[in-house]
Amino acid sequence: MTGNSQLNSEGKLKHFLTIEGLGKELLVEILDLAESFVGMTDQRIKKIPLLRGKSIVNLFFENSTRTRTTFELAAKRLSADVLSMSIATSSTSKGESLLDTIRNLEAMYVDMFVVRHGISGAAHFIAQHVSPHISVINAGDGQHAHPTQAMLDMFTIRQCKHDFAPLRVAVVGDILHSRVARSNIQALNTLGVAEVRVIAPKTLLPVQVETMGVTVLHNLTDGLKDIDVIIMLRLQKERMTSALLPSESEYFKCFGLTEERLKIAKPDAIVMHPGPINRGVEIDSKVADGPQSLILKQVSNGIAIRMAIMAMAMQKQGSV
Amino acid sequence: MTGNSQLNSEGKLKHFLTIEGLGKELLVEILDLAESFVGMTDQRIKKIPLLRGKSIVNLFFENSTRTRTTFELAAKRLSADVLSMSIATSSTSKGESLLDTIRNLEAMYVDMFVVRHGISGAAHFIAQHVSPHISVINAGDGQHAHPTQAMLDMFTIRQCKHDFAPLRVAVVGDILHSRVARSNIQALNTLGVAEVRVIAPKTLLPVQVETMGVTVLHNLTDGLKDIDVIIMLRLQKERMTSALLPSESEYFKCFGLTEERLKIAKPDAIVMHPGPINRGVEIDSKVADGPQSLILKQVSNGIAIRMAIMAMAMQKQGSV
Amino acid sequence: MTGNSQLNSEGKLKHFLTIEGLGKELLVEILDLAESFVGMTDQRIKKIPLLRGKSIVNLFFENSTRTRTTFELAAKRLSADVLSMSIATSSTSKGESLLDTIRNLEAMYVDMFVVRHGISGAAHFIAQHVSPHISVINAGDGQHAHPTQAMLDMFTIRQCKHDFAPLRVAVVGDILHSRVARSNIQALNTLGVAEVRVIAPKTLLPVQVETMGVTVLHNLTDGLKDIDVIIMLRLQKERMTSALLPSESEYFKCFGLTEERLKIAKPDAIVMHPGPINRGVEIDSKVADGPQSLILKQVSNGIAIRMAIMAMAMQKQGSV
Repeated sequence: MTGNSQLNSEGKLKHFLTIEGLGKELLVEILDLAESFVGMTDQRIKKIPLLRGKSIVNLFFENSTRTRTTFELAAKRLSADVLSMSIATSSTSKGESLLDTIRNLEAMYVDMFVVRHGISGAAHFIAQHVSPHISVINAGDGQHAHPTQAMLDMFTIRQCKHDFAPLRVAVVGDILHSRVARSNIQALNTLGVAEVRVIAPKTLLPVQVETMGVTVLHNLTDGLKDIDVIIMLRLQKERMTSALLPSESEYFKCFGLTEERLKIAKPDAIVMHPGPINRGVEIDSKVADGPQSLILKQVSNGIAIRMAIMAMAMQKQGSV
Repeated sequence: MTGNSQLNSEGKLKHFLTIEGLGKELLVEILDLAESFVGMTDQRIKKIPLLRGKSIVNLFFENSTRTRTTFELAAKRLSADVLSMSIATSSTSKGESLLDTIRNLEAMYVDMFVVRHGISGAAHFIAQHVSPHISVINAGDGQHAHPTQAMLDMFTIRQCKHDFAPLRVAVVGDILHSRVARSNIQALNTLGVAEVRVIAPKTLLPVQVETMGVTVLHNLTDGLKDIDVIIMLRLQKERMTSALLPSESEYFKCFGLTEERLKIAKPDAIVMHPGPINRGVEIDSKVADGPQSLILKQVSNGIAIRMAIMAMAMQKQGSV
Repeated sequence: MTGNSQLNSEGKLKHFLTIEGLGKELLVEILDLAESFVGMTDQRIKKIPLLRGKSIVNLFFENSTRTRTTFELAAKRLSADVLSMSIATSSTSKGESLLDTIRNLEAMYVDMFVVRHGISGAAHFIAQHVSPHISVINAGDGQHAHPTQAMLDMFTIRQCKHDFAPLRVAVVGDILHSRVARSNIQALNTLGVAEVRVIAPKTLLPVQVETMGVTVLHNLTDGLKDIDVIIMLRLQKERMTSALLPSESEYFKCFGLTEERLKIAKPDAIVMHPGPINRGVEIDSKVADGPQSLILKQVSNGIAIRMAIMAMAMQKQGSV
């Protein structure tokens, strides 16, 4: 399935699986719709009846409090009925296959699946096999993509910097294993930033990373020069025990974002992180909690972006 | 408690615990009401305010994604508030008795309990002890009964075959341990089918199974002759490790439903299964996914049937 | 944080963390508002739109079916959206700190946290650190306080005895480890009962317990004389294995409430217990299920009290 299979025959969003293959216009449409929802959250009553009577199932094969919670809140604010399923602990324990689980849920007249899975391609697989009336949203699949995270990052950048064209954006850390990095690089290039720079040790970079449309640097001090936006990546603790990295403190010494290093970037540079952060590993608490950090703003924007994506995907076939 | 104690003094449904003791008229009333809900699920807004403000508690002492999910969706589509409790992991771990748990929940002005329990008779026990205004729905108790599954099976059969009277129905597999089999046999006989045939190895049949109003066969090839409806039962893997059965492949060889064997039944025979299916154990994938299979239709019908049963049980004492 | 920091600058309830520092007038206001909700639960539709569009997060770091369920039902009856999180199994397993979890949730435009935590002071800590628009309700913190339980106990007493002034109330059992005892003693003294008497073995009493405004007795038979209200405390089984107590049966012999002992109290004395009860340890089943027991009434009243407290806390800053 290419990116284009996310769109219906009229070019409207049906599934949201990856940034790859989506045009600039569509991404901007998502950002604009999310913009209209941001104001809403300040109102007394945070609900609109856009998806009333629709059933959305959160299928989380991987645990993620933050992402599941934002999707659940976003769905409830659109007045949908939400059902959250932690699949590890349920039917697959009876030996049922993923496809049988999906088939059964769609037989229950579900309208949308929000899928988080440890295996790359899981959301695509489900999208390929569901009934035509069902939308699938990828909430993170293996090391492949995390497109709603990328969109909330784009939203946060636009909110602060207004125009993408002149921006130089650094993505720092474990690019190799990061679905967030992959989706962000695609979104930044689609929206036409001046430069996407990845900064990482060689062991944490994918082969032929240059083909992704990025410049590559292995040194954080050099890498932050002239940068407008810094996207720090979470370092999975399990990478430490493998041969990829020497130690947490060694990593922080080379690639941790400190106040001092932040000064190398432009004075009005912003700092982002998909969370949860490892304080003192990839980022210093003073930076994470400092005035240039937008980490909590990202979380807030995650609600509006997910509302926008769910609403747009449901509009396919005039179903809303 | 006999089946009759499911009815109030006016003969209306109050609890729904077992098919036993319920009359044909009542079963047909359930099927008819469910019929009216099936159309609803195709509409844009799948909610009706029939149980608005009612509190339904799903008490699942046994894990079951599918059944719990359909009850939850059914309740939400009736606009009830639903609370799902997995009891193994909660208050009983503080050493509280089942009855104390029930007493506490009913003190919270709950209107209905949907009960799934590994012990036969658990739902009856709860129904005997709850306050008069509370309804209890049996969502499966031990090896005793699974009456909502039986009703959705009856609904699916009627949808396809229209009239019960001329039908010959085969129930195939582990009759001995199956609450689904027990409830289905009772429902089929109450609705007056021409024949209920059970097909199983001797080790998987209850003693004096003939008293249930069935004919008994031990050979699938002979058994499927002239059959209109085949209800396959799930084979619990744990039966394999006991002395009851030789092996999975041996079981499939003798009692697995293959395309070839299906040809022995009437050409328009339908295939049903309560799920989750064990592909290649009791049923071949080609049959399960084939044109005569109604397995996913059963799941869809499960929503409408559960909506109907919940709505009817709540109408007792004019509470709706 | 003292009790007063629960109030906003106009003296209105903002957080509800402890009974300590709250005035009699405010406690009576809570009881009166709860009174108005009690009638509502008898109606056909048990919902009012008071908190429609508000998002309430149940943060349960400690398992408690009963308390979580009543908060969830109370919130739903006020038409709020509720999200229940069992924190032990989620984000803290990714090594995120409590504060980061809170920061992230508040970034999602949550309006209220209901917090249960095993560590004394946890709810206060969260209240000190949340954004100004968020309310925090303490649903039990360590051995410190359980103020909503105390308020539902006060409500139950008032419902039955009407006037607090002449009452002599006994709190019996493990005072040392009980947050319920602490909050109840404070509430009873604030509401001006004639006497609060604690009855416990010396090993289960805090040092300088007299400073809490109670009279102390070590003998249940003597202690129950002239008593109007008996509040039994749950005996945590784990106290048995420590050196604090000889054995369950020994404890029951000395401090268990039997029918015979109940006769020592006033003839119209009422018996209360926060649940879940240990039958035959701190209370005999005949008493727990007898005519003077209000244990289930307490559970019912828990819904109305929690509705009242949530509604009042949300009224701060005119947000409702």
